[in-house]
Amino acid sequence: MTTQQLTQQIKKKNSFLCIGLDVDLNKIPKHLLSEEDPIFAFNKAIIDATHHLCVAYKPNTAFYEAYGLKGWKSLEKTINYLNENHPDIFTIADSKRGDIGNTSSMYAKAFFEDLAFDSVTVAPYMGKDSVEPFLAFENKHTIMLALTSNEGAFDFQTKMVEGKELYKHVLETSKSWKNSINLMYVVGATKAEYLADIRTIVPDSFLLVPGVGAQGGNLQDVCKYGMNDNVGLLINSSRGIIYASQSEDFAEAASQKAKELQEQMETILNS
Amino acid sequence: MTTQQLTQQIKKKNSFLCIGLDVDLNKIPKHLLSEEDPIFAFNKAIIDATHHLCVAYKPNTAFYEAYGLKGWKSLEKTINYLNENHPDIFTIADSKRGDIGNTSSMYAKAFFEDLAFDSVTVAPYMGKDSVEPFLAFENKHTIMLALTSNEGAFDFQTKMVEGKELYKHVLETSKSWKNSINLMYVVGATKAEYLADIRTIVPDSFLLVPGVGAQGGNLQDVCKYGMNDNVGLLINSSRGIIYASQSEDFAEAASQKAKELQEQMETILNS
Repeated sequence: MTTQQLTQQIKKKNSFLCIGLDVDLNKIPKHLLSEEDPIFAFNKAIIDATHHLCVAYKPNTAFYEAYGLKGWKSLEKTINYLNENHPDIFTIADSKRGDIGNTSSMYAKAFFEDLAFDSVTVAPYMGKDSVEPFLAFENKHTIMLALTSNEGAFDFQTKMVEGKELYKHVLETSKSWKNSINLMYVVGATKAEYLADIRTIVPDSFLLVPGVGAQGGNLQDVCKYGMNDNVGLLINSSRGIIYASQSEDFAEAASQKAKELQEQMETILNS
Repeated sequence: MTTQQLTQQIKKKNSFLCIGLDVDLNKIPKHLLSEEDPIFAFNKAIIDATHHLCVAYKPNTAFYEAYGLKGWKSLEKTINYLNENHPDIFTIADSKRGDIGNTSSMYAKAFFEDLAFDSVTVAPYMGKDSVEPFLAFENKHTIMLALTSNEGAFDFQTKMVEGKELYKHVLETSKSWKNSINLMYVVGATKAEYLADIRTIVPDSFLLVPGVGAQGGNLQDVCKYGMNDNVGLLINSSRGIIYASQSEDFAEAASQKAKELQEQMETILNS
């Protein structure tokens, strides 16, 4: 999928919502546990109930790996279900990978080819040759961590490097990498005011923004500082939507929560 | 496994060699491709031929994920084979993971419990709360990237932060984290002279050193600057050992290459 197609979807659906499919068997409705594949059954129900309200789904791979082979199979079924039934929806493998060149190529192959995700999240610590192998894939997107939404973001990301914060250094440096047009960035919503500075460095890039809702970020602030002419934002919500109810009405409750966010987004897009 | 047990193994085998099981189906001997699980068949033959010469095995998870479900199954079979037949050997899941707290807990569960590795590599960019969930596991070890062996290491890791290089800042900061006794660090061999400085910051920690051989690092230099009273080093070699031959004699050739390194290590340990 191209970024132009993503922007078209956003305008068509009046939504820039991304739903995080972070499935924990301890948190899903009990009645699903008797299904052959409870994780996929949960995801399918959430997708069926919310696909018209969002433009992206983001399974965090940790939640699948934690269940070993079975979890990996659930991830495969989930991405296949999305690609078959909702090819217009942008898919993100939230895996935060990164390794030396030939190894990063293997990860890129895993997520872009074997699992056919549209995008994958990566960590910047190992620098240019750890990220460029991902960027080489046409019409695939590499979403690099810049400023994350957790407390630990202040340990290193905001430290001053050559006169500016490390995360700004990461953003600027990455613009010189080969095929950097395929980069997007993770920027936590809990630091919405930072978005104004970030937009001066990467005015055109899409930003994936976690931390609205459960982690305390504010949608209006994020849009005020982070939106560009092509919207340029994907706002992620995971727990706030998928665990809105733990009863049999969980999909309906998720749809309701997604609708609330979509309506706020529609208001912002039309203002 | 405790670090004391690891040091005992090193002294018993006169070796601090770690063998990287980075299996690429394009590089293994052709005759293995007709096996039901060529990756596991390759690993089993390598392990059978080298286990007396090394103290650790390190599968890089990228090479397994690249083959999807089948690859994950090969990884599971490999770690189970190691734990059943060679419980004294230290196992490293080289996965370079890291995420917000509850998500890192899922990764820790995946590698420490589901797959029962002794250790896992993690990336530091997201800071304290992304690493501490790994550190909470008793007698499990978290090997954090400090200074990697690739070109991209110079993009961010060696930049000056508050008067010292970022990787030194990472090392120092991590010492204050809860259960930091369970930390080890990745330090690339291509920068052996940096090890003297690193030892002033983390004198007692084990260092996992990739980059000897294929990437140009020198064993003598690494030991000169990096060894401590408990040895404190695991030197990794992947391609130089496992792809020493691509013919039917591959396991024998791997054993020969491992033996050359083990003998160099024995000389150093006894000097």
